[in-house]
Amino acid sequence: MNKGTETVRVELGDRSYDILIGEELLDGIGERCRALGLGAAGLVVTDSNVGPLYGKRVLDSLRAAGFRVALAAVPAGEPSKCLDQLGRLYSAAIANHVDRRGFIVALGGGVVGDLSGFVAASLFRGIRLVQVPTSLLAMVDSSVGGKTGVNLAEGKNLVGAFHQPAEVIVDRSVLKTLPPEELAAGMAEVIKYGVIADADLFARLESEVEAVFDLEPELITHIVRRSCEIKADVVRQDEREGGLRAILNYGHTLGHAVEKVTKYTRYLHGEAIGIGMAYAAELSARVHGLPPADVDRQVELIRRARLPVADAGLDFGGSGGLAEAMKVDKKSVDAVPKFVLAKAIGAVDFGVEAPEADTDAAWRDVLARTSNGVGA
Amino acid sequence: MNKGTETVRVELGDRSYDILIGEELLDGIGERCRALGLGAAGLVVTDSNVGPLYGKRVLDSLRAAGFRVALAAVPAGEPSKCLDQLGRLYSAAIANHVDRRGFIVALGGGVVGDLSGFVAASLFRGIRLVQVPTSLLAMVDSSVGGKTGVNLAEGKNLVGAFHQPAEVIVDRSVLKTLPPEELAAGMAEVIKYGVIADADLFARLESEVEAVFDLEPELITHIVRRSCEIKADVVRQDEREGGLRAILNYGHTLGHAVEKVTKYTRYLHGEAIGIGMAYAAELSARVHGLPPADVDRQVELIRRARLPVADAGLDFGGSGGLAEAMKVDKKSVDAVPKFVLAKAIGAVDFGVEAPEADTDAAWRDVLARTSNGVGA
Repeated sequence: MNKGTETVRVELGDRSYDILIGEELLDGIGERCRALGLGAAGLVVTDSNVGPLYGKRVLDSLRAAGFRVALAAVPAGEPSKCLDQLGRLYSAAIANHVDRRGFIVALGGGVVGDLSGFVAASLFRGIRLVQVPTSLLAMVDSSVGGKTGVNLAEGKNLVGAFHQPAEVIVDRSVLKTLPPEELAAGMAEVIKYGVIADADLFARLESEVEAVFDLEPELITHIVRRSCEIKADVVRQDEREGGLRAILNYGHTLGHAVEKVTKYTRYLHGEAIGIGMAYAAELSARVHGLPPADVDRQVELIRRARLPVADAGLDFGGSGGLAEAMKVDKKSVDAVPKFVLAKAIGAVDFGVEAPEADTDAAWRDVLARTSNGVGA
Repeated sequence: MNKGTETVRVELGDRSYDILIGEELLDGIGERCRALGLGAAGLVVTDSNVGPLYGKRVLDSLRAAGFRVALAAVPAGEPSKCLDQLGRLYSAAIANHVDRRGFIVALGGGVVGDLSGFVAASLFRGIRLVQVPTSLLAMVDSSVGGKTGVNLAEGKNLVGAFHQPAEVIVDRSVLKTLPPEELAAGMAEVIKYGVIADADLFARLESEVEAVFDLEPELITHIVRRSCEIKADVVRQDEREGGLRAILNYGHTLGHAVEKVTKYTRYLHGEAIGIGMAYAAELSARVHGLPPADVDRQVELIRRARLPVADAGLDFGGSGGLAEAMKVDKKSVDAVPKFVLAKAIGAVDFGVEAPEADTDAAWRDVLARTSNGVGA
């Protein structure tokens, strides 16, 4: 691959794989797939935004390496993560002669990754998958961990499988076509990795988070690399989500509630997680001993990453409010939310319960920051 | 459970499970599910034939044990193994409040087992599954091994997952409502287990195969037990189908071709396998050293199990014939069929190639038996 390409190894026994991070890697995908020993025929799955930008380069590279490949594009956006698109993609793969030695390339963000990952997990009871994430969020989050799936009318991600990729190829050059708000949304997860596991990463973001929006190459590579390393390390210890993996949900208990009460339309996932992390920081100070200065640092960094930290328009305690939404979160047990809370920047605990008086008060705390100008 | 219930343990590490074989076990299903520690809500999946016969007993037993369960019945028959029914079953499970600790009970034959097994494999990325097979074929074959899946318009079993059950409950009393031709079809797989791994089982069938059709209890239990033990032993050594598991396909290379050229309408699967095994025996004698007397023994036993051994109406070598269908079998490599062939009753090898002259001649051999009265 190109000079300067870095590799993160995800150790999962016979399901281990590499994440390559570098510049202009799209044109080398065919060569990589050849090195992986993939079968003759594959399907490149993308969406209506990414396909026109990068589809041809990926197809050309694969064809030059001798593969028989076709492109299938789903409409951009969450509604494509559905059973209907799944059926369409199975048929597209078979029409292109993909067989049990064949493969799927997921070229896109989280929706494409989740959907085409489940195609790979289930077609012929499992074929190989190469992830080529094109959003920062997908680079640092959804392309690592093996979760694949689709939504049902009844809710998100209700159907799926754990299926690890054969390789993840992160070409940071594609970020130049990513809308800035999507870049910011991806940064929410990066900040999260700092809080849960890496005080140095957090400190580096504090010193130069603005450079992310200039796509400073060394910084982007570092961010993707550390995020993948941290997530890979957690997943290695808890592949099927029995315990430790819960720490990846820092900020997500309230964040998911924010997405739910706003019907997944007002905020990007990462924006909702910005609000969720500011809340988790306040709650951590109230019930888990996080020093107040570390709450300030988190709120300030979230804000500098161009993310919201609160929303005074949302109801917390009433019917249909955030507190109620947290109680029916799928991680809740007997309607008691389980939080991931920080003791310090870089150190968290999972499965923590908090008194209702504190969960209410933490929301007021974060709103107070917004009104006095600390928040967004 | 009831006196006389036998248990076969399937050892697959943390996916190990028990197969219970006994009489009138349906009424004890609730108690078993309680012992398995299943979550509060489950969905019983069945079909339009089996539901009216046994659905209420299973629901009553589960409800008496405190479970919240609903019944979902698909139309009987292979067309129900489709993505549309899959979507229907996901929704039925969620409507009954099945959550990630919930479970699926598969009450029926192979179609119900495969379809509802895939529901269990994929809903919430995998929930627990209790198999209650009601056909002899499902008891001895499809409820062991963890293969689940659905068909696409393009072909059978193209989508699926490996998902081991939490338990398999074989109530042999339900066989009294099974049509005799379905009983015979199940016997094809039982005879197969004798040929591939157990000369004693084969000999016992030779001495009393007719008693199967009288549902002689001790014989049925022995047949189910040994079949499950043999399959479990093979699956334990090769869970994901890399090698040894291929021996389970004795008789299936030609058998699948018979099903294909007759468009899956003329023969039950087991009947096609009867023809396939007679052919495999002849081919084994020609190219793998099987003594001619052992061919006679197999053909005779297949016949006594009320199964066909050949079909003079099928074309072998022409376009659209059996030979061509074998070449495109999914186990073929570069259009060369790979056979499982016997050296003796109880000893087979897999991945064997055979000269075309012999594959042709073996078909003539088996047809000759039919015309001179040895076959069906």
